[in-house]
Amino acid sequence: DLIVLAVPVGAMDQVMRDIAPHLAPGTTVTDVGSVKQAVIEAVVPHLPEGIPFVPAHPLAGTEHSGPRSGFAGLFDNKWCILVPGEAPRDAVDRLAELWRGMGSNVDEMDADHHDLVLAVTSHTPHLIAYTMVGVADDLRRVTDSEVIKYSAAGFRDFTRIAASDPTMWRDVFLTNKDATLEILGRFTEELFALQRAIRMGDGDLLHDYFTRTRTIRRGIIEAGQDTDAPDFGRVKVAKR
Amino acid sequence: DLIVLAVPVGAMDQVMRDIAPHLAPGTTVTDVGSVKQAVIEAVVPHLPEGIPFVPAHPLAGTEHSGPRSGFAGLFDNKWCILVPGEAPRDAVDRLAELWRGMGSNVDEMDADHHDLVLAVTSHTPHLIAYTMVGVADDLRRVTDSEVIKYSAAGFRDFTRIAASDPTMWRDVFLTNKDATLEILGRFTEELFALQRAIRMGDGDLLHDYFTRTRTIRRGIIEAGQDTDAPDFGRVKVAKR
Repeated sequence: DLIVLAVPVGAMDQVMRDIAPHLAPGTTVTDVGSVKQAVIEAVVPHLPEGIPFVPAHPLAGTEHSGPRSGFAGLFDNKWCILVPGEAPRDAVDRLAELWRGMGSNVDEMDADHHDLVLAVTSHTPHLIAYTMVGVADDLRRVTDSEVIKYSAAGFRDFTRIAASDPTMWRDVFLTNKDATLEILGRFTEELFALQRAIRMGDGDLLHDYFTRTRTIRRGIIEAGQDTDAPDFGRVKVAKR
Repeated sequence: DLIVLAVPVGAMDQVMRDIAPHLAPGTTVTDVGSVKQAVIEAVVPHLPEGIPFVPAHPLAGTEHSGPRSGFAGLFDNKWCILVPGEAPRDAVDRLAELWRGMGSNVDEMDADHHDLVLAVTSHTPHLIAYTMVGVADDLRRVTDSEVIKYSAAGFRDFTRIAASDPTMWRDVFLTNKDATLEILGRFTEELFALQRAIRMGDGDLLHDYFTRTRTIRRGIIEAGQDTDAPDFGRVKVAKR
């Protein structure tokens, strides 16, 4: 009834090519790839007549990959984005029910908007985390063991992100190139503005900037999207 | 017996100036500031004859600040770095005992090395996280509510970091300027190399880079420095 393509984005084309001749009428095809335009381009040309394809992206997971990294509550209260395009409504609705049945909230959007939103909320942050961990590893005057011992909050979060699957992430950046490069351009522009403020000793600019970013964080907490994040204090107090 | 300066780095000078006339003989002064060279420069000139100053930096805390954000296990298995300089050994040893008594591991290093290590493992990562959250907030085509709803792992970690106290972080960047600017320079250099690889479609470079950064993460887990980080899978499975 349902084929879920759960492979790195770069492998979608070959997998779809291989399975296409064996799809029975009435089957729906979906995927769980982190980019959507590239997956649609890879899958649709091989799709047999009458087989609907409903691209999907569950925003859930950890830095661990593979079937052993799954757990029962993985999708609880997470968002799954469907990118139905011109897929028949009944196939889209059935897939939405499947994701709701696994505890997800379901939204729909266009493929290009999905790719931009994810470039901001996931792809660029991952690239930045990888880069920072690489810089730490390269720095001769600070040993790896010092980096490891003294990685307090901040860098430790980066290393968790930067431990994600290299193949999956290589494919994300190669296939969501335009949106990632756009967001990276904005990021370096802003970073240079803050860097200049540090060099010039402009404390007001820094303070204002840091105050503004708190607002988004409050929004995330109010929206209940941070249930997995550690709240060190409260968790520990509650246990004692 | 002991004065602990627990104020933003930019306030150390004034606080020390105010309290200096009231320090009894036999008192030791210490601090918990995130940078050490600037704190030494702010405190030492006001220090009365015979009062030892032992700078310290406990690498512990959350994005929450103020006395209500403390909890009993805050320092358990965390590192506290002492920067004794020329302080008398008995004062250093007593302070080390205090930190060990609160569950910390204690190390000693020079002030300039401390500031470089922290620029890598904490200060620059914080600046980057603030910047990324600012970029997301600025992007007209993606609404704040989309950023909030779809902030999966990656960006969500950044927002937690970027919710930290603006005054404390302004002072960190103003007072650890040289080391932060050096690490920022290296960071943007590496980021541009990865950006170029994305633009050119150099998947091998990306894959190799992402594979290398996993090593540091493994080191952190083996060193037991990530006990507070959520291990979504195992924690949830164990609870059921």
